[in-house]
Amino acid sequence: MTSEISPVNPLVNSLAQYRVILSHTSHPGNIGSAARAMKTMGIERLYLVQPKLFPHPEAASLASNATDVLENAIVCETLEEALHGCAYAIGLSARKRQLSHELVAMREAGQKAHAVISTGQEVALVFGTEISGLSNRELDLCQLLAMIPTNPNFSSLNLAAAVQVACYEMRMAAIGTQLHFEEEPTPLATNDEVEGFLKHLEDTLIDIGFLNIHSPRKLMPRIRRLFARARLEKEEVNILRGILKLVIKPRPIGRK
Amino acid sequence: MTSEISPVNPLVNSLAQYRVILSHTSHPGNIGSAARAMKTMGIERLYLVQPKLFPHPEAASLASNATDVLENAIVCETLEEALHGCAYAIGLSARKRQLSHELVAMREAGQKAHAVISTGQEVALVFGTEISGLSNRELDLCQLLAMIPTNPNFSSLNLAAAVQVACYEMRMAAIGTQLHFEEEPTPLATNDEVEGFLKHLEDTLIDIGFLNIHSPRKLMPRIRRLFARARLEKEEVNILRGILKLVIKPRPIGRK
Repeated sequence: MTSEISPVNPLVNSLAQYRVILSHTSHPGNIGSAARAMKTMGIERLYLVQPKLFPHPEAASLASNATDVLENAIVCETLEEALHGCAYAIGLSARKRQLSHELVAMREAGQKAHAVISTGQEVALVFGTEISGLSNRELDLCQLLAMIPTNPNFSSLNLAAAVQVACYEMRMAAIGTQLHFEEEPTPLATNDEVEGFLKHLEDTLIDIGFLNIHSPRKLMPRIRRLFARARLEKEEVNILRGILKLVIKPRPIGRK
Repeated sequence: MTSEISPVNPLVNSLAQYRVILSHTSHPGNIGSAARAMKTMGIERLYLVQPKLFPHPEAASLASNATDVLENAIVCETLEEALHGCAYAIGLSARKRQLSHELVAMREAGQKAHAVISTGQEVALVFGTEISGLSNRELDLCQLLAMIPTNPNFSSLNLAAAVQVACYEMRMAAIGTQLHFEEEPTPLATNDEVEGFLKHLEDTLIDIGFLNIHSPRKLMPRIRRLFARARLEKEEVNILRGILKLVIKPRPIGRK
């Protein structure tokens, strides 16, 4: 695929579109081991959401020669911030059931991620805390949940081990069987664009009286799931927001 | 696949035919982490060839709840002894070229191993020291060399990380593509339900002035494509139509 005059390796480029996000990690050693695991697979962009201790000598020690990944890590206050600019966020889930999201094995997640990467957009792999994983609120910000098929009697994958397997699958999908997508790649909406639309939609649903803020039930999570499944394109977000702008408030009952 | 009279899980049985052999491991912590990595993938038979320090509290500590794997580990004097009874030994190699052996990626090694397992025989995954890997003499005792396709600029996989990826590929080959998630299947909307919704939506878009019937352009085909991709569920159609019912016509300009 590369011509002789272009020294660019397309694999290296495509792996640069991945980022790993570790949210609320407790042990700095795990951050270091995760950095090493990432780099062995050629994924080098690390985001840390409110790490308990960072930077820390233990992180540096366990990163081995991947200290550059730690040095370039971006520390964020929120997962939203860490997801900025991403078109597709894959949350690692140890749970089997999750009402709100599509759940696939990590291998399939690698293929789905690679399809997004092929359009030139960015993908995030999102990992929660060592003990409890991602919160429901964090899972809501992901478009896909992926699980590593572990031994049902002993599923306690170490955080860095999970990062290792996930990054391995991303790499394998990238170098793998050269998947061809006949469809014209269309640019997906970024995380912040989708969130902007969902907020606009929620406000409108409250306005027209469909959503009762005092009894929201599961409405927004359901709607979120629908649009996560669809993986909205940029232009679709524009269309949907254009529609919302024209939706009019109902007049209060009794008023003429 | 299992009948009511046989409680045996064939997956568990096939993974019992695998063993991991760690040869001349220097750091007891790596033995513990490797034990944990193995067990998460359902592989529990560990052989240690002349470990530098074993048993050791650091091994037990890093094994987390896989201490049973350590307790049942078999310490051997030689690799030959550890391989006793095995039909197929796969040596992990970080080197790209090896004159004497077939070298494949770990994924392919998983498939080859699984073919051996299917005949009822045993397979060993053999790992050398942290620094220099397997000696040529040890490689000679293997039938296949397998490599994990790492970043060429940073191939320093930790021993436990290599064990993790190798065991993961063995497990994935054993469980194959038939991953079952106990997700509740949700009923999809029928074609006529989706069409009914799309008609309702189109009428509403005309009503609110977003869609001009004299110049519809590609709006409805685009929206149709979005919802086709999402594959709407019955309940989602109900929600969407509920929203449409509350969308109010804009009042004509100039009217108070």
